[in-house]
Amino acid sequence: MIRLSLDEVRDLACRVLRKHGFDEAHTAALADTLVAGQRDECASHGIYRLLGLIATLRAGKVVPNAVPKVLDQAPAIVKVDAGGAFSPLAFRTGLPVLADKARSCGIAAMAINHCVHFSALWVELEAITALGLVGLACNPSHAWVAPAGGARPVFGTNPFAFGWPRAGKHPFVFDFATSAIARGEIELHRRAGKPIPLGWGVDANGQPSTDPNLVLDQGAMLTFGGHKGAALAAMVELIAGPLIGDLTSQESLDFDAGTKSLPYHGELIIALDPVRFLGDAAEAELARAEALFTAMQQDGARLPSQRRYEARARSDANGVTLPAALHADVLALLA
Amino acid sequence: MIRLSLDEVRDLACRVLRKHGFDEAHTAALADTLVAGQRDECASHGIYRLLGLIATLRAGKVVPNAVPKVLDQAPAIVKVDAGGAFSPLAFRTGLPVLADKARSCGIAAMAINHCVHFSALWVELEAITALGLVGLACNPSHAWVAPAGGARPVFGTNPFAFGWPRAGKHPFVFDFATSAIARGEIELHRRAGKPIPLGWGVDANGQPSTDPNLVLDQGAMLTFGGHKGAALAAMVELIAGPLIGDLTSQESLDFDAGTKSLPYHGELIIALDPVRFLGDAAEAELARAEALFTAMQQDGARLPSQRRYEARARSDANGVTLPAALHADVLALLA
Repeated sequence: MIRLSLDEVRDLACRVLRKHGFDEAHTAALADTLVAGQRDECASHGIYRLLGLIATLRAGKVVPNAVPKVLDQAPAIVKVDAGGAFSPLAFRTGLPVLADKARSCGIAAMAINHCVHFSALWVELEAITALGLVGLACNPSHAWVAPAGGARPVFGTNPFAFGWPRAGKHPFVFDFATSAIARGEIELHRRAGKPIPLGWGVDANGQPSTDPNLVLDQGAMLTFGGHKGAALAAMVELIAGPLIGDLTSQESLDFDAGTKSLPYHGELIIALDPVRFLGDAAEAELARAEALFTAMQQDGARLPSQRRYEARARSDANGVTLPAALHADVLALLA
Repeated sequence: MIRLSLDEVRDLACRVLRKHGFDEAHTAALADTLVAGQRDECASHGIYRLLGLIATLRAGKVVPNAVPKVLDQAPAIVKVDAGGAFSPLAFRTGLPVLADKARSCGIAAMAINHCVHFSALWVELEAITALGLVGLACNPSHAWVAPAGGARPVFGTNPFAFGWPRAGKHPFVFDFATSAIARGEIELHRRAGKPIPLGWGVDANGQPSTDPNLVLDQGAMLTFGGHKGAALAAMVELIAGPLIGDLTSQESLDFDAGTKSLPYHGELIIALDPVRFLGDAAEAELARAEALFTAMQQDGARLPSQRRYEARARSDANGVTLPAALHADVLALLA
């Protein structure tokens, strides 16, 4: 393993991104997400993801330097056209407008369109809660997941995330895939020649399977939580797809045309302003939420975001470690 | 079994409600929900529920005739103070304001406060989609459900519902409890002396249990979908509790003070206007959602709302059946 400080992680990410033609605005936005992923030990969104970003660029499936276009669509809707670029710069460009609209209207929505997916939704939710707002966010991905009772993929892994600001504390944030498990987990089992647990996927006949090859190549992944999880996955397709004039996971996969690039689609973010909902009572009402968080931590149970915050404290103090092979792969992108 | 026409069901519901002092506005709003439940073979929200409504009234836990007060809280927020009455009249009173706000702002929220819960969220979502709007709704209930990793109840059964309008078709609507199963299902197993499946609840030590007595009396119910379902349940507590200045499920259970009445709390409804999101492209974009619905019905799989629509067609044609004992119990409320 290679140990790096967070500054070194950022420097490495920025050098790779600049080398491949990303401008300073995109480089900064992408590096912030990559560093946050590595720092919080969410490896799938850490430095590892640089490989996918550059592969997507080389496949011609992302515009490196599109300038996000902000459209004031309605009093409570802002649209940001990412122009085929990665999503983080579009998000940070639109966020102040979303926040203004939430504060003036009480609730507001931001639709990011025509973006190539690279966001960790929890990073975005933390940015929203840092402004004192409650937030929800979701997006489609690529069609890999079967609907309840089906055998062929329809949904993406379709993450759904929520954030709640807490005075003087890390926000309450969750961010989960509506698939039973990340696709990468099934890939790892395939590489290791290990069976997967029942519940992760089905074979070509829609039968539960423990064979990662059958699930990935012929069948489909499953949602978490049976028909309820599938219903949520469908909701994500709809509100972050047709409702915002952007692609479903099937349409994104068709657009990909076998290049195995990151998904190209939209994202819907909703922000709610507690002060607008509650007026002078906001502080007292939000304090009642703390009793809920205390009750949720009974018997040593942890809040959804707790693991990330603990990793963050470790990384802030000691830096992070990278597998040497991954470090070498990333350095090779500088050659 | 007793067979009744839908008109007879409505007449029966109205007579019982009037007899117990509900005014015409509340009677009509409650009867509409009861008839819809019975018609769609959603028995828990059908005529059976009349018993609970009257029991709650007799326990002094509901105000029969409060006039809902509509408050224009913000450009995109309407609040409706139900004044301690059942929720359906508050919903229908506020709905036109919510729709106006969604159409002018693009997205809007309605907070119903101080209501005693009797709504089937899918009934409300159908009313929202009938106006051409996309909707979400959720509410807490009573604290019966443990958080992930916990042994004591914190969350309610916390339903979450979504609706999407479809041109010339029944809307796409789902409405599910974030608990693994309805509390009533566990009660039925207890009465029948039958064990419950693993996954529905835990005993007082947080261990999985198949004993309905241990789950209901000493332990807790579980959410669907493990920690993801628990995260959703927490979100419902927050956005339909403190965010709107209303009770959490624990606070609602404390207010109940052992009377076993229906929960007293708030509800959050969000409406989004596709026309405001999409302008002239709305019709074409929404048509793309139909491809998703077609794909979801592959291999004979059904859309979440399909069972209800099939039941509705049967009931519209042939009326409904009630167990004779239930019919007698309801008639006894008229004595």
